[in-house]
Amino acid sequence: MAENFKKYFVELIGTFFLVLTVACTGLLGSEGVIAPLAIASVLMVMVYAGGHISGGHYNPAVSLAAVIRGALSPCQFLPYAAAQIIGAVLAVVIFNFMAADSIMLIEPALFDLKGLLIAEFLFTFALCYVVLQTATTKNNANNSYYGLAIGFTVLTGAFAVGGSLCAGAFNPAVAVGVSMLGIITVKFALLTILSNLIGGVCAALVFKATYTE
Amino acid sequence: MAENFKKYFVELIGTFFLVLTVACTGLLGSEGVIAPLAIASVLMVMVYAGGHISGGHYNPAVSLAAVIRGALSPCQFLPYAAAQIIGAVLAVVIFNFMAADSIMLIEPALFDLKGLLIAEFLFTFALCYVVLQTATTKNNANNSYYGLAIGFTVLTGAFAVGGSLCAGAFNPAVAVGVSMLGIITVKFALLTILSNLIGGVCAALVFKATYTE
Amino acid sequence: MAENFKKYFVELIGTFFLVLTVACTGLLGSEGVIAPLAIASVLMVMVYAGGHISGGHYNPAVSLAAVIRGALSPCQFLPYAAAQIIGAVLAVVIFNFMAADSIMLIEPALFDLKGLLIAEFLFTFALCYVVLQTATTKNNANNSYYGLAIGFTVLTGAFAVGGSLCAGAFNPAVAVGVSMLGIITVKFALLTILSNLIGGVCAALVFKATYTE
Amino acid sequence: MAENFKKYFVELIGTFFLVLTVACTGLLGSEGVIAPLAIASVLMVMVYAGGHISGGHYNPAVSLAAVIRGALSPCQFLPYAAAQIIGAVLAVVIFNFMAADSIMLIEPALFDLKGLLIAEFLFTFALCYVVLQTATTKNNANNSYYGLAIGFTVLTGAFAVGGSLCAGAFNPAVAVGVSMLGIITVKFALLTILSNLIGGVCAALVFKATYTE
Repeated sequence: MAENFKKYFVELIGTFFLVLTVACTGLLGSEGVIAPLAIASVLMVMVYAGGHISGGHYNPAVSLAAVIRGALSPCQFLPYAAAQIIGAVLAVVIFNFMAADSIMLIEPALFDLKGLLIAEFLFTFALCYVVLQTATTKNNANNSYYGLAIGFTVLTGAFAVGGSLCAGAFNPAVAVGVSMLGIITVKFALLTILSNLIGGVCAALVFKATYTE
Repeated sequence: MAENFKKYFVELIGTFFLVLTVACTGLLGSEGVIAPLAIASVLMVMVYAGGHISGGHYNPAVSLAAVIRGALSPCQFLPYAAAQIIGAVLAVVIFNFMAADSIMLIEPALFDLKGLLIAEFLFTFALCYVVLQTATTKNNANNSYYGLAIGFTVLTGAFAVGGSLCAGAFNPAVAVGVSMLGIITVKFALLTILSNLIGGVCAALVFKATYTE
Repeated sequence: MAENFKKYFVELIGTFFLVLTVACTGLLGSEGVIAPLAIASVLMVMVYAGGHISGGHYNPAVSLAAVIRGALSPCQFLPYAAAQIIGAVLAVVIFNFMAADSIMLIEPALFDLKGLLIAEFLFTFALCYVVLQTATTKNNANNSYYGLAIGFTVLTGAFAVGGSLCAGAFNPAVAVGVSMLGIITVKFALLTILSNLIGGVCAALVFKATYTE
Repeated sequence: MAENFKKYFVELIGTFFLVLTVACTGLLGSEGVIAPLAIASVLMVMVYAGGHISGGHYNPAVSLAAVIRGALSPCQFLPYAAAQIIGAVLAVVIFNFMAADSIMLIEPALFDLKGLLIAEFLFTFALCYVVLQTATTKNNANNSYYGLAIGFTVLTGAFAVGGSLCAGAFNPAVAVGVSMLGIITVKFALLTILSNLIGGVCAALVFKATYTE
């Protein structure tokens, strides 16, 4: 397989398992504390598994931040985002087939617009800031904690604001997935995606302001 | 002790504690969130303890994936799987003796066949994919996260689909153990084992398609 | 940006997310087990993200201990503490704006004075001792566990004494934040800050007594 | 301070915080899932903090295993165990003073003798086996996971058998502490200590049978 396609394939696989875990823990009756733990864990393990091949983004906001920081070529943004969104859509399709008889229907959540926009922005900013600082710098080269740090940033965000102020996506591909699953409305998903991408841009700018090789 | 027997012994010890933990957290009245945390933890610690000796598989599906990837000699598959299954059986025997007066009898779980097969396949695939990427590549040599990644893949799978769609074994030796314990029926155990082994094979093929030394 | 201002900015960002997480998990109706997990996680990830720039203190008691140990210049203590407290205040302001309609008002907690002083002292001592041993010694240079160790010291303290004997701040900047949020009274916040700073001083002295380069 | 006294002091500090956390999470009304998480965390962080000075045992059974394996001089066993037990006793004394008005009295737990002896033996064996494999071998030198592995072995044991079959001490110093706190009777504490020490001896023998430099 061409090197680029290996990267896209790895991004697809990681985002697939991320969104599959979101779907399973959101719609199969898990206790409240479980979804954040499971989602943080799957992100962590997929970052460790695929980081050495594709960078392990699994998130268009992270890929955008990586482009601005100079860790990903600009012409790779669209194929990365496409692979991530295809992974998310596949996860929803497989989930609906696999769990057809066990899905617990829920009403789409309603959030205050201001709270949703700020909360998704802040923790996507935190996520992209942590990715850039721990996984793209010479100072921290060859560390073994980048996956733990990245995954547990999502744990923090999901516990802090997920469910109460926003969906806790911090990731446009996840926003697409939860919207297809009926967990949030399309309107909220679009606002989440916008907020996530702005968070990624701001994180890259702050990273550049704080880092010196 | 001959070097090979050291490996088998380490595989037996690790699988013994894995299945013992499954038995204790499944049949001594633990809250729902505890079994996945305990099982992921014991797998993680046994991978860290024994990885440098035997590879730390504790799972015939992982050993099969390692054979296809070229990380384990084909003639080692059967003794590895045998050591793992003996460890699982011993764990059930010791558990029944140790906890005889405290075991809470439960009805074998019933699952939808389609959901069980797909769910066990997908997360065994994820587990073997993570093992091969984090513990058998030169790119990731000498990392300190492989046990964390491997253990927490099982956490994710157990939280995502364990109990709702399948037993959450992701491991034929565990399937043997939970079947002997009466947590699932023999029929479901056989389907679980089949699904696990196919997941391991697919993970090895996907690994080979995505990795370049 | 001047190198020193990069450090202050990183301290501000980390303390901002630490106190924001305290606010969200304390006042948006989370289950009891969630706040400690989320707070430990955000501290861990911010230590990993910013440690290579500022040391990743996010805590005036830690900065004080670092000064006494010789890991931070004495003239940096006040700007570090100021950046941390500004981060904490900003977090409260943003939280109040972002979550205005979702905040669950609670009564300020009441604690036994003796218990509060000893409990905040002991676990701030533990926190600063762990920081100095894992993040400032040549013996442990280039390890990947310092953020995990530091974050999970706060997990331990929060689970052990947070809520029952004290606010579980172990950090004067957090004490300022929880006081502004009405979680504890100003009087308790001042006693907490005093106890935290004494804990930091004692940890630095014990570190110096136990360590040899 | 003489080098040996630094080691004893570090062992005392670590065991103090371990038993203090046991006391706080056992007698201040924590939910069931909290004590194992807090205890595993404090052990992990103290192993990371003190490992480079004293080895980070905090447990006479681990020190005994280290002596048999050749990682600790035999003449150090008694001072190590004494420092550990003094740390445990101090923790009980400070806890009783600090939390006097908040302690929830509980009845000493009653366990089946056979279950207690086997369960304490098995998980002390696992703990000492993990310590020796991850923290005393050349193959695993300079890894960053030894504290995580050691701490989470106790998490596994506490979740698997703690409370249902035994006190979940896996550590004679903890057994002394919980006995002084009235969580278990003196008779059960003595049996626990015996079982722990035998577990440590067996782990050292199994380690020697499986390891090759």
